[in-house]
Amino acid sequence: MPELPPVFEKYKPHIEKEIQSLISGRDLIKISKNGSTIYEMMSYHLGWLDSNGAKAKSNSGKYLRATLTLLTSESVSGNFSRALPAAAAIELIHNFSLVHDDIQDDDDLRRHKPTVWKIWGKPQAINVGSAMKTLASLAAYNLYDKKIRTENLMMILKILDQSCLKMIEGQYLDIDFEKRPEITIKDYLHMIERKTAALIECSLQIGALIDLNPVKIKYFRDFGRNLGFAFQIKDDILGIWGNDKKTGKPGGNDIRKKKKSFPIVCALSTMNDSSRHEFFNVYNKRTIDDSDVQKILNILNESNAHELSQQKTEQYYNLALIDLKKLPLNKDKIKDYELILSFLVNRDF
Amino acid sequence: MPELPPVFEKYKPHIEKEIQSLISGRDLIKISKNGSTIYEMMSYHLGWLDSNGAKAKSNSGKYLRATLTLLTSESVSGNFSRALPAAAAIELIHNFSLVHDDIQDDDDLRRHKPTVWKIWGKPQAINVGSAMKTLASLAAYNLYDKKIRTENLMMILKILDQSCLKMIEGQYLDIDFEKRPEITIKDYLHMIERKTAALIECSLQIGALIDLNPVKIKYFRDFGRNLGFAFQIKDDILGIWGNDKKTGKPGGNDIRKKKKSFPIVCALSTMNDSSRHEFFNVYNKRTIDDSDVQKILNILNESNAHELSQQKTEQYYNLALIDLKKLPLNKDKIKDYELILSFLVNRDF
Repeated sequence: MPELPPVFEKYKPHIEKEIQSLISGRDLIKISKNGSTIYEMMSYHLGWLDSNGAKAKSNSGKYLRATLTLLTSESVSGNFSRALPAAAAIELIHNFSLVHDDIQDDDDLRRHKPTVWKIWGKPQAINVGSAMKTLASLAAYNLYDKKIRTENLMMILKILDQSCLKMIEGQYLDIDFEKRPEITIKDYLHMIERKTAALIECSLQIGALIDLNPVKIKYFRDFGRNLGFAFQIKDDILGIWGNDKKTGKPGGNDIRKKKKSFPIVCALSTMNDSSRHEFFNVYNKRTIDDSDVQKILNILNESNAHELSQQKTEQYYNLALIDLKKLPLNKDKIKDYELILSFLVNRDF
Repeated sequence: MPELPPVFEKYKPHIEKEIQSLISGRDLIKISKNGSTIYEMMSYHLGWLDSNGAKAKSNSGKYLRATLTLLTSESVSGNFSRALPAAAAIELIHNFSLVHDDIQDDDDLRRHKPTVWKIWGKPQAINVGSAMKTLASLAAYNLYDKKIRTENLMMILKILDQSCLKMIEGQYLDIDFEKRPEITIKDYLHMIERKTAALIECSLQIGALIDLNPVKIKYFRDFGRNLGFAFQIKDDILGIWGNDKKTGKPGGNDIRKKKKSFPIVCALSTMNDSSRHEFFNVYNKRTIDDSDVQKILNILNESNAHELSQQKTEQYYNLALIDLKKLPLNKDKIKDYELILSFLVNRDF
């Protein structure tokens, strides 16, 4: 079974400490005696507190994006500490998007726990997400104290928000796709380029920009793009065939949500009229039950969608491996990138 | 009848042009043939397009915050053009909060039109608000091209996001207040200090910081705080007794939403047991009908809440007038601030 490469564990305490330092200074007076502050809700989402505000140690995610930022900064300069504010910023942007996505998708579970909106309601969960996005900017401004060239600093800030905007555009398209009948593979790639790849490209670029001349960052962008595509298509596979004990979400979840994820779009591009008819019979329903999920799984099976999706993941994986060789970084770090890549396309969570 | 002071009209086309330049460059491919892009939804909210994407000219708000930024920059330096990116940023932050507030409060109308979520649904309206918040940061980064001292630029960026975070904290408290029985005047002031005053303080500070030494901006903060308090309490008065033809919202709106706004909190602090009993009989209901609204209006009338609220507004107005004299700015601009202040406490929209 694929395990998380050690580089994730190496950076994790540093990432958490950086994010905690941003939150812990903020004691919003708790007016509601029985309620939670917005910062407690945030810490719950991040796995550090339970829903009553007591200390907890639950799954806080992989910190993939922050890890890529720190690894890239270290690979370029030999040191990762000056990149910590950027790593905190990108992880907060990612988590802001998760809190809002859960509201938008009506998802009850995230990382094996009830989602923020499920506990505190949608209005407050909207605030929690927006506060995280704002904290992300405040995190990034701490780069100013790290003696980074002003030109590079401004470029990091711009890339963070340009990528965040692309991510929101991707989320807009993803929601829009649910109510449109036909989505082509081209439409799908257009969407995940924004929804997922933009932030992964960004995590590499901002890590490089701590020290590197801005003209050299385009290679990191290409690598991040292919890595992002591989990552999202694998995520789509897990969203349909994943083991819920591992992923923290119920199996067949993306089918229940009528998502037009890669396996679905891939199957739609080849299925015959009778399967297509049966498919839309299910996807046009208001709600989808277990037997409907099974029908869709059968159609996907006939179309060989699982295997085709894994092949597509590996195709982007191979492109990323080629890009990796072009990156201007310390050669002894290449192995860490390879381990991350290999984990992402073979993981089961 | 109080009219909008001419300074609003003077800056308006410049503010709109600056915001439009940020949006117009972004042609998110419109995949849904009958749908609207996220940027069209934004332009609808801002009054520039109708809900079908055709050009419109509807009420786009007063641009109070951006006007304060530009007036302050011009009063300090004799020129407002270098402050335009900051003005666009603060107005986008304000409008992001409006789009999300409408979702959180289930409000159907804003500026005489259906709200964004009412037309495109809550999931996409969440995206529209978040995209505006992100564009606000991108707007502010354009200050880098305006040859502002790096120290000042970084301070402007920080103040923008610190104020935005306070605003979100205020929104969290405001929502929390709805389900709490007793709110004191102190609780209320604590809430609007964040929800409203923070962004108004910010609009003055960032205008001053385009050219002024950072040590001098504290006077602008004090002035903005009192102005913000006066503005919000007046807004609360209009939220109960406002003319819906003027405000764009139905009369008694804040009562229907069970808001603990200033007139309510003020009445609660003095009312007798029988009125208190009747008050909570209504406010504990799931939904409030027209006769309930009338009951609350009667209770407010008995408590003299309208007059007491107007007095409180004027109290902050007078404090702001005192602060105004301390501001390090061009004396011939004082008149413009006075006109804005006087308009804000006497307006009926």
